[in-house]
Amino acid sequence: MKLVRYGPLGQEKPGMIDAEGKLRDLSGKVDDIAGDTLSQKGLQALKAIDPASLPLVDGTPRYGSPVAGVSKILCIGLNYSDHAAETGAEPPTEPIIFTKQINALCGPNDDVEMPRGSDALDWEVELAVIIGSRAKYVSESDAMDYVAGFAVMNDVSERTFQTKRQGQWTKGKSHDTFGPLGPWLVTKDEVSDPHDLDMWLDVNGERRQTGTSSTLIFNLPHLVSYVSQYMTLMPGDVITTGTPPGVGMGMKPPQYLKVGDVMTLGIAGLGEQKQTVIAARD
Amino acid sequence: MKLVRYGPLGQEKPGMIDAEGKLRDLSGKVDDIAGDTLSQKGLQALKAIDPASLPLVDGTPRYGSPVAGVSKILCIGLNYSDHAAETGAEPPTEPIIFTKQINALCGPNDDVEMPRGSDALDWEVELAVIIGSRAKYVSESDAMDYVAGFAVMNDVSERTFQTKRQGQWTKGKSHDTFGPLGPWLVTKDEVSDPHDLDMWLDVNGERRQTGTSSTLIFNLPHLVSYVSQYMTLMPGDVITTGTPPGVGMGMKPPQYLKVGDVMTLGIAGLGEQKQTVIAARD
Repeated sequence: MKLVRYGPLGQEKPGMIDAEGKLRDLSGKVDDIAGDTLSQKGLQALKAIDPASLPLVDGTPRYGSPVAGVSKILCIGLNYSDHAAETGAEPPTEPIIFTKQINALCGPNDDVEMPRGSDALDWEVELAVIIGSRAKYVSESDAMDYVAGFAVMNDVSERTFQTKRQGQWTKGKSHDTFGPLGPWLVTKDEVSDPHDLDMWLDVNGERRQTGTSSTLIFNLPHLVSYVSQYMTLMPGDVITTGTPPGVGMGMKPPQYLKVGDVMTLGIAGLGEQKQTVIAARD
Repeated sequence: MKLVRYGPLGQEKPGMIDAEGKLRDLSGKVDDIAGDTLSQKGLQALKAIDPASLPLVDGTPRYGSPVAGVSKILCIGLNYSDHAAETGAEPPTEPIIFTKQINALCGPNDDVEMPRGSDALDWEVELAVIIGSRAKYVSESDAMDYVAGFAVMNDVSERTFQTKRQGQWTKGKSHDTFGPLGPWLVTKDEVSDPHDLDMWLDVNGERRQTGTSSTLIFNLPHLVSYVSQYMTLMPGDVITTGTPPGVGMGMKPPQYLKVGDVMTLGIAGLGEQKQTVIAARD
């Protein structure tokens, strides 16, 4: 299934994309794409619904984040062997976890704000894992049982804030709109091999990132299990699993985004995003 | 006012401590201590209530976190001049922000779990600021308008996970129960000078930390304003402002907690906490 949340910011309704790619309204069936709806049982109940029985949604509404009730966004650093090489860093010997605050979460095609004082706004196409049920101390072999599905995330980053303002990376990862997610939450059963997905990102129509999840250093079961040793994952939590090569910071010389730039990005089977860079709002 | 949330985990009700120190039930007035209730207007409405008109609560119920709907816990590193010296670190030139995931939040007297594989479980008494309303790009002079009040937090930390497992500190800060908060949310109007509060922490009755918020390197208006330049603060968000000297990591040799140890801690005017260390639960 491809699950979505559509409508104006803060008023999103749950929806489903049918076999013809049409948007169907799920709000008569579930309150939101969140909590128990993301459990294996919750998703099975949705799968039992005939999409043709759901109301068609007219027009082309905005998409929001395809999942609500997110309590944390955990990001994995330097998790592509080819991206680690590009930054000049040694590949990590165990997963690097950093965090994006949830105010950053937004729809896949929402404008991305350039913060005040930003001089190094960067892009990162990423494969995000959406947690389906509470996970603490789960084994690698059981880990995927706790996953609802996958989505595209743009891990928007301000490199000066991230690396030159003391302390932890979250300073450069958490501005409003730094976490476009979606368009869809694609349930696990629809993705035959999440470790073999092509991914790409363009800036103003020029290809910047080309990669594949086959070069992940730590795979998805390892990441879910690993994170669950340090903190308890809850339904809707997002683990975004790192970015392949081609970020602005890695270019020679580095190239960063400016107001008016347009990012388009996608992952095979998980859909595409498009964001325009705007000046920060109050 | 001293606001609380009392009752079994996950079923907490809002309450208020009256002038005699008795617990009164607020659930007929507000749904929870969260969201709009934390705004200046929301708190004024609570202040207009005569506590004697509220039902007395019998017995001695558990206290939960005094605030609900927390979307992030931001911690400020090395923010006491005397603690920075103890760790051997240079005092920071601007605030160090690190994060504690919200699954860590718990009541002030709940048991604290020692994670599997932990060998360096440590304590940190801290003055926490509770945000009252959305704050983005706020000035230092306006910053306190966005604050609902203050509470005690024990920033429980696993030093091996924090510093020796690659990447960011959040790995050692986010285990379930690593964020006892409370007992009370003490509203701003009740604290004459938050920069002159004595604080202390004992382990098994022996004094470990003694400090005062007068040695904060970055004061509270500066911190709220600073954080709001990097991410949008929401009602209920917690900024915990650093710890004074006396953590286990700073002892020679370092001393850490073991199962059965008891931490007691407090801040003048903000109440006291008591936690027993237990083995991690599933």
